[in-house]
Amino acid sequence: MTTVFDTNVQTLEEQIRSVLQNQPDIPLDQIFKQAHPADIADVLERLSAKQIWKLFLKLELDQGAAVLHELGREATRRIFREMTDEDIAPYLNAMPMDEVADILGHDVPWRQETLLAAMRPAEAREVRDLIGYPPDSAGRLMTEKFVRLPRQMRVEEVLDYLRQVDSEVETLTDLYILDDNGTLLGIVSLREIITASDQRIHVQDIMATDLITVTPETDQEDAALLVARYDFLALPVVSEAGRLLGIITVDDIIDVLTYEDTEDIMRYAAVGDSGMMDQPYFTIPIWRFVKARIGWLLILFLGQTLTGSVLRTFATELETIVTLSFFIPLLIGTGGNTGAQIVSTVIRGVALRHIQLRDTLKVMARELLSGLLLGGILGAVGIVYALVWGQVDFRFALVVGLTVLVVCTWSNAVGAVIPLIARRLNIDPAVVSAPMISTVVDASGLLIYMLIAKTLLIAI
Amino acid sequence: MTTVFDTNVQTLEEQIRSVLQNQPDIPLDQIFKQAHPADIADVLERLSAKQIWKLFLKLELDQGAAVLHELGREATRRIFREMTDEDIAPYLNAMPMDEVADILGHDVPWRQETLLAAMRPAEAREVRDLIGYPPDSAGRLMTEKFVRLPRQMRVEEVLDYLRQVDSEVETLTDLYILDDNGTLLGIVSLREIITASDQRIHVQDIMATDLITVTPETDQEDAALLVARYDFLALPVVSEAGRLLGIITVDDIIDVLTYEDTEDIMRYAAVGDSGMMDQPYFTIPIWRFVKARIGWLLILFLGQTLTGSVLRTFATELETIVTLSFFIPLLIGTGGNTGAQIVSTVIRGVALRHIQLRDTLKVMARELLSGLLLGGILGAVGIVYALVWGQVDFRFALVVGLTVLVVCTWSNAVGAVIPLIARRLNIDPAVVSAPMISTVVDASGLLIYMLIAKTLLIAI
Repeated sequence: MTTVFDTNVQTLEEQIRSVLQNQPDIPLDQIFKQAHPADIADVLERLSAKQIWKLFLKLELDQGAAVLHELGREATRRIFREMTDEDIAPYLNAMPMDEVADILGHDVPWRQETLLAAMRPAEAREVRDLIGYPPDSAGRLMTEKFVRLPRQMRVEEVLDYLRQVDSEVETLTDLYILDDNGTLLGIVSLREIITASDQRIHVQDIMATDLITVTPETDQEDAALLVARYDFLALPVVSEAGRLLGIITVDDIIDVLTYEDTEDIMRYAAVGDSGMMDQPYFTIPIWRFVKARIGWLLILFLGQTLTGSVLRTFATELETIVTLSFFIPLLIGTGGNTGAQIVSTVIRGVALRHIQLRDTLKVMARELLSGLLLGGILGAVGIVYALVWGQVDFRFALVVGLTVLVVCTWSNAVGAVIPLIARRLNIDPAVVSAPMISTVVDASGLLIYMLIAKTLLIAI
Repeated sequence: MTTVFDTNVQTLEEQIRSVLQNQPDIPLDQIFKQAHPADIADVLERLSAKQIWKLFLKLELDQGAAVLHELGREATRRIFREMTDEDIAPYLNAMPMDEVADILGHDVPWRQETLLAAMRPAEAREVRDLIGYPPDSAGRLMTEKFVRLPRQMRVEEVLDYLRQVDSEVETLTDLYILDDNGTLLGIVSLREIITASDQRIHVQDIMATDLITVTPETDQEDAALLVARYDFLALPVVSEAGRLLGIITVDDIIDVLTYEDTEDIMRYAAVGDSGMMDQPYFTIPIWRFVKARIGWLLILFLGQTLTGSVLRTFATELETIVTLSFFIPLLIGTGGNTGAQIVSTVIRGVALRHIQLRDTLKVMARELLSGLLLGGILGAVGIVYALVWGQVDFRFALVVGLTVLVVCTWSNAVGAVIPLIARRLNIDPAVVSAPMISTVVDASGLLIYMLIAKTLLIAI
């Protein structure tokens, strides 16, 4: 399972390490010249603070800016720590401004003002605008550098116009037609310009006007889903009044999708500060990682103590029939596994918009049925297991089988409904984690087990 | 949390349902004209088999093809069931061939041959080529319709050439320069063509030649990671000999990323047939969903029975000190939670290529330390809890605290290393699920608990 870029990065790392040991096979500038910024960033992430900075300074300005774009938070901080604001500013001026906003807003917020003061005024102003939008919003991701066409421009004039466009404009694929106030009127693709049969007509005569747009306050995840759904290469961001403020390009959208999926998976595993987990694993200091995890572990620990309370209530039963305790981990474990399966299914269904809020009852009905079917099969296996391995009598085996049936159905319903309730309360359903469902199911599952046992084995 | 397209889809569904009830506010053709294929598909998914087909036939050919492109497996099957091969073929001819290959290969494999026979020969041949590549490979995703330029073409000639290009060519953004044998020599962007200062030079003089390519056999996930990493809009697929076979466009890559993330999350939750889970939730028949889940649940159930064996071995101790059993769910639950956290972290780190195979020992060292820190904190809480709530003596509380410490460290190390071992064995690490780690940790955690208890409480 070694891929093209595993090899790229590994070769590059070996080359760079040989430079650091003063035994270079290839001179450093040549190594850098042949390497992609994303690969260089990957290697830098794996080096010590001092080495990162030393190597970073050897990069030419443009490549340095591109590498900075790719680096994670910790590595960026390490480099910035060694440099003055005036040293850093030229790199920032050369980067896409949405990326600069991300660095100043998230990575080194304490140097935001002094760095902005050191940047070129026009760039600094753009960054200030972007930082003004909420975190994780579409506004934070957009670039102001796109192609604006006046509505009266003739198709034949467009290509000449494009030749003079700023080289920092990220894409020429979609061209935006604005009125004098900057209101977005329509979009025309470069392809339509080239293939238009009549080159004398105005761009407004061939532009598309049924546009899908977002506002700067739109959540970045929703913006990403729009792009994924409608196969856009760029998404326009407009103000309430319809002014085109910027566009979000598809490469940023892919980053958002990756980030959001990481966040969802980490939350699902009950890791706090899940956004941080997007940083490369080895660059996260151990204490920060422990801090991100301990919160949920403590909450879950306290939740789990309920199981102790349930069991103590039934101390007499457990003392009388010690065999009861042998089945405890099996029964609650099976409930937890069933719950883990369904909670991820529902969370994913919500994330992909296959499940809507109004479907709550339909989901519950479906999952009650699923739970009964799964519980029925597992319960039958449970009875056989209790009889054969547990060497218990049939009445006891029935307790085991019935508990599996009820616990599976219960945990399947709970696991399906809790994420939807979370969403109804405007909480991201992904904060409902598998361990959380396990904890809920453990305590309630024990209660179910003990009550069934007490009812059926009461004669003893 | 209602987004643009939640509203779009809901309005569209209401409009379409009013048509189905013969009380349309707006005629159907007008509804369809204003709607995006992805939205129409979403509404169709929610209707009955008969309604889907009836409505589908009302779509114009091109829009029907676009809707078919967006539909999930079940809905596609429902429509096809009602139509002859000859009725379906025109829609297939109008679709991108990678999508047709997907439908014929995955959705209705039993009609593959007859449908191919009904299609136009050129299209059928292309589909046959694509189906020949392994499932989930780059070859399956590519389109043969891209712009080929001869190396000697002058820059000024390119625009005229593009005007004659087949309208089915998906992108004009990247143009591919081939030699007479079809070998890929370089890539030039349309932007470079337009902004080239000298319009008389040959395209081979401005083309980029340090290309990143994949072969048709490359795993689709690796292809997607390349595009995400290097911000491509299209990725060339070449044969071993260097012939350009096709390109993969970024919209297909986004679909792959979404599919792979769904698969990873489902596997992590121990749901089998995880690829199927990409289908819209409500279109998956309940029995199929139960089938996808029962396999792992049974395996885990059998794995869990180990816990019973461990406990039975210590029957005397449990009988003597019934209080021991009160702490069982808490102790193994905490181990399971710790394991769930770390296994997702490592799986995600591997998926994003932040963790390489050669890092196994480094990961283990880090996670032993993390586990000790987490276990230390939780263990201290455990001692207090046992003393205060459990009202046990200090020696017993020490058993609880020590068990938490050891179980956390153990499950953290196990959860970190097992995915890496899986990868070393060329198994996708994502098949290592949280429930699997829980099950491993449950049985071994009980053993740890009982051994510590026996050692420290031996006097009794």
